[in-house]
Amino acid sequence: MHFTSAQRLDDGVLERRFTLAEVPGILWTPGSAPAPTPLILLGQPGGLDKMYPRLLARARQFAAQGFAAATLELPGSGERPRSAAAEEARTDLRRAVTAGEPVTDGVVDRLVLPLVDKAVPELQGDLDALLSLPEIGGPVGYAGGIIAIGVRLAVVESRISAAVLFAGSYVPRSMFEEARQVTIPLHVLLQWDDEGNDRQMALDLFDAFGSKEKTLHANMGGHTGVPAFEVEAGNRFFARHLESRRRRCST
Amino acid sequence: MHFTSAQRLDDGVLERRFTLAEVPGILWTPGSAPAPTPLILLGQPGGLDKMYPRLLARARQFAAQGFAAATLELPGSGERPRSAAAEEARTDLRRAVTAGEPVTDGVVDRLVLPLVDKAVPELQGDLDALLSLPEIGGPVGYAGGIIAIGVRLAVVESRISAAVLFAGSYVPRSMFEEARQVTIPLHVLLQWDDEGNDRQMALDLFDAFGSKEKTLHANMGGHTGVPAFEVEAGNRFFARHLESRRRRCST
Repeated sequence: MHFTSAQRLDDGVLERRFTLAEVPGILWTPGSAPAPTPLILLGQPGGLDKMYPRLLARARQFAAQGFAAATLELPGSGERPRSAAAEEARTDLRRAVTAGEPVTDGVVDRLVLPLVDKAVPELQGDLDALLSLPEIGGPVGYAGGIIAIGVRLAVVESRISAAVLFAGSYVPRSMFEEARQVTIPLHVLLQWDDEGNDRQMALDLFDAFGSKEKTLHANMGGHTGVPAFEVEAGNRFFARHLESRRRRCST
Repeated sequence: MHFTSAQRLDDGVLERRFTLAEVPGILWTPGSAPAPTPLILLGQPGGLDKMYPRLLARARQFAAQGFAAATLELPGSGERPRSAAAEEARTDLRRAVTAGEPVTDGVVDRLVLPLVDKAVPELQGDLDALLSLPEIGGPVGYAGGIIAIGVRLAVVESRISAAVLFAGSYVPRSMFEEARQVTIPLHVLLQWDDEGNDRQMALDLFDAFGSKEKTLHANMGGHTGVPAFEVEAGNRFFARHLESRRRRCST
């Protein structure tokens, strides 16, 4: 992990950009919080520059709760090299959505499975590097989108204790079996009238999760219209699960 | 409205039992809150004595927020005269559920429609009486179960400004058209694995509501296992909608 810049924001949050095996990422740590702090991995749809304002806003909220937050550029997004197969699948998906046609399982598999296969090990490497920093301890939460990445991470990465998942992207059918293996507490956000998302798939996925504690919060307002009170509900979810684990670990 | 008893509880809440046209009810008002206070009508499945502990707990939480709360016995429940037709429909419904058979629309209609037709005007009369008390002003919220009663009330009673509905009972198909006419902010609680409830019906009903602001919160834990954090989310919903209306009314 190589830090490329550092700046102290007006609310005291320290923002550091880094690269990890040439993949760019950003780490935010609270200005004042008892170290080591819990960490939240921020999932995002790819394109750090475009997503920066929203990621920063989430990171500031988590920092106010005493949590660090970090994000990593997705394979094939931002400045990273494109995959021809992924671009082709993305074009096919957009064409189907624009034409009002059903998005086939084949298109979803071609687009999402290689992304999950590549992104999850990178996020695990990110976690190794971040948790080796003295200011970051654990527990670790995952928050955000490309829900299939959240599902895979929750299954294979035992350091993730709780996740807020945004049901705003397609999930390959083959990953429903993985969803059954998820046992960590989950808080799932669904925008009920999100036209770019398959509502029934999101409900089926929520049903499939093996977690004993799982909550679904559905709202109106389209893909980007998650109400502010639901953002706060997600913050409280992490406060319940990460804070209590921190207390348990440190006593 | 005839008050039959009054007692001051240890947290300062004043609990008064009353009858209104021979129907028993309970009114809880906060020990200290700027009068007149908003009011929340507590829906319940019938049987005030059996439901008393849970109703009291909800009323205490609302009183702590500065809201009064009131409940009225349902037709055919508690000490009120039984309806032979309703008892027969209830027996048919229990038989179907016990046998694992589908609950027919006919059984739901026979059980729920007469109940809604009778209970809603009674609740409106209750509202007339309660709002004539100097300590109770408005706005008014509705919280609780027999969701069909909440739907009808939200349509016909313009004094109801916001509702927390518990999707834990059957709704006649004919009332989905009424659901489309609901425009007030709604917060719907669904217990995902509630065996005595039809999950798909609850999701369809949520979809049907005409409200621009509607939220669905689904959790595990069976019919009576609504998590404490969801009770708090309901409280915050009323704080947002009733408090802001009170401020708007008084300025």
